[in-house]
This record gives sequence, structure tokens and C-alpha cells, in this order.
Amino acid sequence: MKKLINKPEDFARETIEGILAAHSDSLKMVNDNFRCIVRADEKKPGKVAIATGGGSGHLPTFLGYVGYGLADGVTVGNVFASPSAECMYEVDKAIDNGAGVLHLYGNYGGDIMNFGMAKDMVEMDDIEVEEVLVTDDVASALKGQEANRRGVAGLFYAYKIAGAAAEKMYNLQEVKRLAQKAVDNTRTMGVALTPCIVPEVGKATFSIGENEMEIGMGIHGEPGIKRSELKPVDDVVEVMLNKILEDMRFEEGCNVSILVNGLGATPKEELYIAYKKAHSILEKNGIKVYRPYIGEFATSLEMAGMSITLLKLDKELEELLDFNAYSPFFQQFR
Amino acid sequence: MKKLINKPEDFARETIEGILAAHSDSLKMVNDNFRCIVRADEKKPGKVAIATGGGSGHLPTFLGYVGYGLADGVTVGNVFASPSAECMYEVDKAIDNGAGVLHLYGNYGGDIMNFGMAKDMVEMDDIEVEEVLVTDDVASALKGQEANRRGVAGLFYAYKIAGAAAEKMYNLQEVKRLAQKAVDNTRTMGVALTPCIVPEVGKATFSIGENEMEIGMGIHGEPGIKRSELKPVDDVVEVMLNKILEDMRFEEGCNVSILVNGLGATPKEELYIAYKKAHSILEKNGIKVYRPYIGEFATSLEMAGMSITLLKLDKELEELLDFNAYSPFFQQFR
Repeated sequence: MKKLINKPEDFARETIEGILAAHSDSLKMVNDNFRCIVRADEKKPGKVAIATGGGSGHLPTFLGYVGYGLADGVTVGNVFASPSAECMYEVDKAIDNGAGVLHLYGNYGGDIMNFGMAKDMVEMDDIEVEEVLVTDDVASALKGQEANRRGVAGLFYAYKIAGAAAEKMYNLQEVKRLAQKAVDNTRTMGVALTPCIVPEVGKATFSIGENEMEIGMGIHGEPGIKRSELKPVDDVVEVMLNKILEDMRFEEGCNVSILVNGLGATPKEELYIAYKKAHSILEKNGIKVYRPYIGEFATSLEMAGMSITLLKLDKELEELLDFNAYSPFFQQFR
Repeated sequence: MKKLINKPEDFARETIEGILAAHSDSLKMVNDNFRCIVRADEKKPGKVAIATGGGSGHLPTFLGYVGYGLADGVTVGNVFASPSAECMYEVDKAIDNGAGVLHLYGNYGGDIMNFGMAKDMVEMDDIEVEEVLVTDDVASALKGQEANRRGVAGLFYAYKIAGAAAEKMYNLQEVKRLAQKAVDNTRTMGVALTPCIVPEVGKATFSIGENEMEIGMGIHGEPGIKRSELKPVDDVVEVMLNKILEDMRFEEGCNVSILVNGLGATPKEELYIAYKKAHSILEKNGIKVYRPYIGEFATSLEMAGMSITLLKLDKELEELLDFNAYSPFFQQFR
């Protein structure tokens, strides 16, 4: 295990302490608890608050999307492990502006249980809570069973759309509707080339041959849909995009935002080579690329590989995607 | 070699084609040559133009710093190889606004030769050219021989300072003076944990043991100053920062910007753990951290490791560092 860390058991805490030391103007703790992080800027009375959370090891997901036009607070778990309901409850209380809280997070068992408990707790304090689960990973359940799919890099679009809606002072039902609409129009496919090592475990999350790739692998190393010989990236992108295009109808002439996301160890150069192919496939299908995002948006520590996410846009989603957003990890100003 | 690429010999070209497909509103080619990339926004008559360039494989360096408040044009070489003088000449001509061009690049033999030839060529067209070489890598030459040092992640600060000065319509001599002042006040130390693989070579740039690290290694795998057992990151950061603090005088109470840069495969989490330690060492030395930057700013493909860069600030440099900047790879709006 070759990592620039101290004690493995301090990994999550020291990460957050570093983030708070660097970005104290943007982020702060609730009750001195490093697992409960909220925006440091002034609260806006009447604005719907957005809470998220999940395991560590995916930066900029989740903590990186706490900021203007994005989420208001996050609960931080250990690496690939759900944070506690108590922490979620503390974050909800800290971020509520009197307009209710939207729980917006990835569809994983532990998170569902804990966010559910937190919802019960915070509702007893007369704070209204709604929830939207992100379920963008096409590989994780068949067509028709979308609600069973895991949430991966598509989380970014959910934060972006819901965060903009909240900033525009839409009410809780509207923010929820738009977050769900973003999720319903988002699809992701991933490919992994190498595993990562969870610091406290100390060995690779899975093994894979020197010349193999796995299409559809999850961001915690969940099994994908096909393991095969590593192909030229143009072929890999074609397989991935075809899966997405078969899964959801994209009308000719529609606008689509695309996110090519690096899983950790894959150079930006490779992401752009993949993007080039994706762009040309979409154009050939009469789909217009709008606001492409290329970089690391949801990682798995030092895993090599990438994911491709499409968000099908209409006027309403486009306007929200265009809205400014900034956090220490993501800036969009035009 | 596990990479998401097509033919290795197409790596640089396909990377640029992907970047241009994604960011055609920000970047464009000169003479349809993918090796000559300039800003796509309107030129500003009388503004000093800044040209840079170097080998591929270091994104966001170099191309990623072509944008507002940064550089105006870049010449792109193959992986870790200098671009040609002819391309530099074409870029210079394309970006000149009648106020002269600053060549701002890293101190490497091939680049010096080619930028030198380009300077001779472009001066025959009556365009004034000055140059500043970035020499921030402490490990690459002894104290007193700063001019022999290589340029690494400190390039970022040189672009940021010179780019802001040019945007403020300072003249060529002033932009040059400020770029040189940034370089003179910038120091970097790196550490590598794993090598990278140049696509066309197909094998690792160097070998290193499963439990070893190399302090001071260059971004092309140039030998460092010490290879040893991998230590806890707090110890690694202490060694690296002490080297920098011994190399340049930092007055107590001075402001310093710090850049913790990932070399490619190192997760953001680890960079923040390193930042936490660096922040505390600086504070203990009475040095105030101003505008920390943490992320990937100058990479070596999929190399694991990081570098730490300090820029010692005074009022003049601070004001320029604060200036807005944006490119497809870097945004700073406050």
C-alpha cells in the first residue's frame, strides 16, 4: 500500500482537517465534529437547505459539493462507509433556513437507513424533510429497475440542479421535483482498470489482470457487467455510450450535458481522448453537447478508470445547469 | 501499460482534439495546427501577450493555463518532449497585440533552444520578445545555482502573476519583471511514489521499490536527492518543507501562498492530509498561509506523488495573485 498518509484509521479525520485548514472561509464544522460540515457563508432565510453525505474516498464527492448553488451541508463517513444518523441530524438542524431540508444522496443501503433515521429525528423538531436518491449507474440494475441503481458521478448533476433551484428560492416541493427530474434524466457508465486500496484494509478492493478492464464496476469496486481484455479507448467509449443510449431515449436535436469523470489515477489527457470519441458519437446521433465537464468529480481513491455521464436537458434543466456555483472544489461562473 | 488510449503515437494529438472539442469557446488552433493553441476570446490591443509551451503529459500544465489572467498561447509537444521553434513562432505571431510577447516556460534544454530560435524568428517580424524561465525545483540544483533549476509546479504561480500583470495592461518590461519576481520567490519540492509510463515508450520511466519513495524527483522522472523507505506523510512533508525553508528566507509574519500539487495518481484526500501538516509547520514558523491551492496543477501522467510549492508574497504579488483568472482548467473569481 503506497499512500501519502499517516495512520490509516486517521485518514478521514485528517482529510477533513486539511480541508478545513485550507478553506475555513467556505466550510465549517457543526459542534466541533469533523463529520458534520456546512457552508460557512451567511444563511439565507427561507432558502431550502440541501443535505448530502456518504463515505470518504470519493473527493470531490461528497464534501466538495458543499457551496453556493450546490449543497448546504454534508455528513462524512469513513472510507466507503456510511456516516451516522446522528451526524445527519446535526447537519440538518444546522442548515435549515425555515424552508425544509432535501436529503440528496446516492442509493446505498447504509445511507438510506441512516438518512431515514435522521429524517425521523429532524421531523420531530418540526423541520420538513424530503429525499431524493441518486440512481444513475446503468450497470447496477436492469432497465425498468432504475430505482435499484446505485448513485455514482451523476450525483454532481443532482447537486448542480437542486442547488440552483434552492438558490433561486424555489420551495421544497419544487427543489425535490427538480432534483428527481435531474436524476431521471441522468445515466452513467463506468470502466475500471485497477482497484484501489482502502487505507484501513490495506489491500486491493478486487483483483484484475494486467491486460483487463471491467465495464460497469461501481465506485466501491462493486462487480460490473463485463470483464474483458483492455481495448482502445474509442471502443471502450462506444460500448459505454451505447449502453446509455439504449437505456434512455435521447430525441434527435436535444441538448445533453456530458461528464467524463476520472476515478482517481487516470490522467486528464486520457479523459480528453475519451471525450473526443464521446463527443463525436453524440454528434453522429444528432445529440448536441451542452456544457461538457471533464475531470475528477467522483473518485475511488487511486482507482484507474473513468465514467461517462449524460444529463438530458430541457429548457428548465438547462437554465439551472447554467446557474453559477462555487465551492472549494468546483467553480462555475458563466 | 494500462491506459485509456488509442494508438500511443496519437496520444498528444487526440488529447488536444478532445480539449478543442470540449472548449471551443475558450481555445482555438493557429493555422489548423493542433500544436499551436491560443485563446479564442477577442484580443486586447496593447496587452502584453504571454506564450508558453512544453511537452504533453503534464495537464493542466501547460495548455490548461491559456486563458484570461493567465497565458495567451501555448505550443504543445509530444509527451515529455519540447515542441518546435516553428510552432512557437506561429503562436507568438498569433497572440501579439502590438505590445510584445513574454516567453514564460520551464528551464529545460530543449525548450530553451526552441524558444530561443523562435525569439530570433519573431524579432525579425519586429515583435519584441522577452523571456523568463521558471526555476522553482529546489532539488534540481544547489542553493546559489537557482538559475540551473528545473521548472515544475511553480509554473502556475508564474502564469498567475504575469498573466494578471498583462491583463492590467502593464508593459512588457513590467510583466517580465513581475514574472521574474514570482519565480525568484517560488520554491518547490516533490516526492514520487511510483513512475509513469510514456505511451510511446510503453514501460515505466524508472523503477522504485514497493516500499520506497524518492524525494526531489523531477516531473519527467529526473533523479531526486534521496530515495528512502516510505514514511508517514507528516514526516515526508516536514522533510520537503524544511528543504524549502532552508533554501529561501521567509520573514516572520510574511504571507505565503502554498500549492500542494498531485502528480497524477495521488488522491485529493492525501493532498489534504499533506496540506494539514504543511499548514501547521508554516504557522509554527510564524508564516501566514494566504490563498492555498490544493489539487492537480502540474502532473506526470499517472505518477503517484506530490509536490509542495511556496510563493512568498508582498503587497504587489498578493494583488496580482488575487486577480481573477479563468481557463477551461483553472478558475479563480474572488
